[in-house]
Amino acid sequence: MTTRINMVIETIRGRIASGLLGEGDKLPSVRQCAAALHVSPATVVEAYDRMVADGVIAAVPKSGFFVARLASPPKGPAQNAPARPAEIDPFWVSRQSLDADAETEKPGCGWLPPDWMPQEALRRALRAAAADPVLLTLYGSTRGEPSLRRQLALAMAGEGLAVHPDQVLLTGSGTQAIDLICRLMLRPGDAVLLDDPCYFNFQALLAAHSARVVSVPYGPHGPDPAQFEAIVARERPRLYLTNSAPHNPTGAGFSPQIAHRLPAIAAAHGMVIVEDDIFADFVQQAPRMAVLDGLQSVIRIGSFSKTLSASLRCGYIMARAEWIDALCDLQVATGFGGPSPLSAAAIAHVLVGGQYRKHIDGLRRRLAGARADLAGQLGAMGLRVWGDPVGGFNLWCALPPGQDSARLAQACRARGVVLAPGNVFSPSQSAGAYLRFNAAQTSPRALRIMAEEMAVIE
Amino acid sequence: MTTRINMVIETIRGRIASGLLGEGDKLPSVRQCAAALHVSPATVVEAYDRMVADGVIAAVPKSGFFVARLASPPKGPAQNAPARPAEIDPFWVSRQSLDADAETEKPGCGWLPPDWMPQEALRRALRAAAADPVLLTLYGSTRGEPSLRRQLALAMAGEGLAVHPDQVLLTGSGTQAIDLICRLMLRPGDAVLLDDPCYFNFQALLAAHSARVVSVPYGPHGPDPAQFEAIVARERPRLYLTNSAPHNPTGAGFSPQIAHRLPAIAAAHGMVIVEDDIFADFVQQAPRMAVLDGLQSVIRIGSFSKTLSASLRCGYIMARAEWIDALCDLQVATGFGGPSPLSAAAIAHVLVGGQYRKHIDGLRRRLAGARADLAGQLGAMGLRVWGDPVGGFNLWCALPPGQDSARLAQACRARGVVLAPGNVFSPSQSAGAYLRFNAAQTSPRALRIMAEEMAVIE
Repeated sequence: MTTRINMVIETIRGRIASGLLGEGDKLPSVRQCAAALHVSPATVVEAYDRMVADGVIAAVPKSGFFVARLASPPKGPAQNAPARPAEIDPFWVSRQSLDADAETEKPGCGWLPPDWMPQEALRRALRAAAADPVLLTLYGSTRGEPSLRRQLALAMAGEGLAVHPDQVLLTGSGTQAIDLICRLMLRPGDAVLLDDPCYFNFQALLAAHSARVVSVPYGPHGPDPAQFEAIVARERPRLYLTNSAPHNPTGAGFSPQIAHRLPAIAAAHGMVIVEDDIFADFVQQAPRMAVLDGLQSVIRIGSFSKTLSASLRCGYIMARAEWIDALCDLQVATGFGGPSPLSAAAIAHVLVGGQYRKHIDGLRRRLAGARADLAGQLGAMGLRVWGDPVGGFNLWCALPPGQDSARLAQACRARGVVLAPGNVFSPSQSAGAYLRFNAAQTSPRALRIMAEEMAVIE
Repeated sequence: MTTRINMVIETIRGRIASGLLGEGDKLPSVRQCAAALHVSPATVVEAYDRMVADGVIAAVPKSGFFVARLASPPKGPAQNAPARPAEIDPFWVSRQSLDADAETEKPGCGWLPPDWMPQEALRRALRAAAADPVLLTLYGSTRGEPSLRRQLALAMAGEGLAVHPDQVLLTGSGTQAIDLICRLMLRPGDAVLLDDPCYFNFQALLAAHSARVVSVPYGPHGPDPAQFEAIVARERPRLYLTNSAPHNPTGAGFSPQIAHRLPAIAAAHGMVIVEDDIFADFVQQAPRMAVLDGLQSVIRIGSFSKTLSASLRCGYIMARAEWIDALCDLQVATGFGGPSPLSAAAIAHVLVGGQYRKHIDGLRRRLAGARADLAGQLGAMGLRVWGDPVGGFNLWCALPPGQDSARLAQACRARGVVLAPGNVFSPSQSAGAYLRFNAAQTSPRALRIMAEEMAVIE
């Protein structure tokens, strides 16, 4: 039957393409079409349904099927990512990675491919959650689904941090968590301290808050505490936004001494640390500022986008009770709630079932192998991995002398390969000789294209 | 087996309650417990799993099960909605409704109960979407799932508005859509025009933007155009935020003349109209400013929270192409994307299948009956429905002389009934004698309690 359905679809599409059927024209009725093309009415119904799903035609109740009357592409700035102004700014990697088609290679993207995720466990968990009419249809409570907040509190207890489930606020993503904190804590012009290099979207986010970015060099085990304190004393930043381990883009992690010192410096200067630890589960254990500090001067952020599913859109904040209250009200005012209760309950289901722990153990092993493989391949091409990544999928690599990562990223983009050039991560624009690679997303083909484009300059 | 599982759970819970097992203590192994209680190991495994899900105990891989070590409730402001400061502000109804337990009656809440929603269609659509590994695990494109944007563009074409799918941006909710627009268009201190009365959360949202609220009286068919223009000329608001039909809280709708005049006034004064039409599908047809204006001075907002599922967290914006570009970048910066691609694809699935149209037709009929019933019951209690609601579930009612809605709401809240008192909807605080009722959520019991509390004052 598939062949006949496709025949019907091709016939109708051909009539539209040739102009025999124009926008808004009525299609032949199911019976007419079946008779004309010598197929069964069921075949035509299925073909029309698929064309409705594709947006080619529209069904109008009691009238029939019509060629879809879509507006022409709007005038104004170009609409598709590849056609956009090609300036490399903090949005460049986001747009190029998120809007890429399935054929595009994305060694510069910041997430794992679908086949690294526990798909069957996610499907089972979603089915279980969707069976509950309340989870399926209603808004949920203002702090977010209690079963997930309880699991998060239990996981924190396992790390040695006593946190009540009411000190956890679920959000629509890790980024949204940071955005809420910025809304609560920042006024335009306030200084915010970032690592150099740091996750590129921190800069885009802070620009949306009209914050003044101040940066501190990120060393092999985090910022140098003396230099950090001098900058804090001089610039009086309201927030310091960072990842404990693995750090983005370097994959490095704080030493215990640095993780211990920074919250003390923050407390002394009235600065709040936002510890964005959405990669935390990629390392078995690492010193966490939120744990050492007991959530006094530190706010902890997390998400399941990197380890379970980015599509479920669920992040969280752990913080002092009075801050959570204020953030909760702010999230109601600006979003009428956080993540889908259905998504949050499904995530809780995966956590409870023990599948998450097994999945993460497997991910760590697989990623360690992938990082080693990629480091070897990159080394053979003359790239050098910076520092000693403690986990995760990111490798931060120095290019051979004479190479510029922005030029290389532009050249590779034109050939269907999205790279993450160093300066999008660098507030001081001093990382032009670096690229961030995703060990789970870098194919031999992408490396070959990159090598060819590197050869052009040599 | 259920009885035996419950027996195991009750036994363990009893030991915890009596202090025989304390926080962090190890539970007997599955084998020990099975032997001691004369049940099968499978029964104990199931019982322990349920207690893990309930957060009573925690599983530690390779070690066993432990009594959960949860922090005590944090100090500071009270944690639960009922215990919060009882001041009635724009957050009051949101908190009370969202955080209410299952026993609480919510005639003041702003959504339909689960059994009014097409649950089986939603479950099927979610299953279909979750079958796709990409939809299940990845972020999705920056504008949001293309299949839903296409369906929305087609639906608009049916209303007579040509909109390209790239002029549609999906967001995490209708509120989040308005929040993004405010972030793009407002600076602190800018004036924003609201109806009086209007949806209470508009005020909470604008407070988060430090906007200056200016209000215009809302008449039986919208604001009076002459008065509207005088206010616009005097106050120079940057935005006018409203609902065409049904209006929240009144359920009224713009006359064609008013819907035609307001965008012209906006254009003449450089003001943008945000038409929040998340209730639009509750009326078969109504004059829409976005359609009349062709999306020049008007931005259209929508959502599926009121008609399909609030849990799927999906809203949208239709606007000029260059505004959509800017809003899209802003959503990446502040949330790294909008709604779950899985949710969006599931919604598209329901729209394509024709189930949505049938569901909405049924909802309209059922709501018309429910509104008439409730209006009759309220009339018998001395309350008078304002205006002539054109659709939806809201009835805006004047209390008998001498009654104050804030006092009544406090008294009823203490008895487990959440009302929506008039002044939370009124920027000028002139609606103290009104209450908003949800025709799908107002039980005879809630009305009886309200009548008893009204009698106290008489």
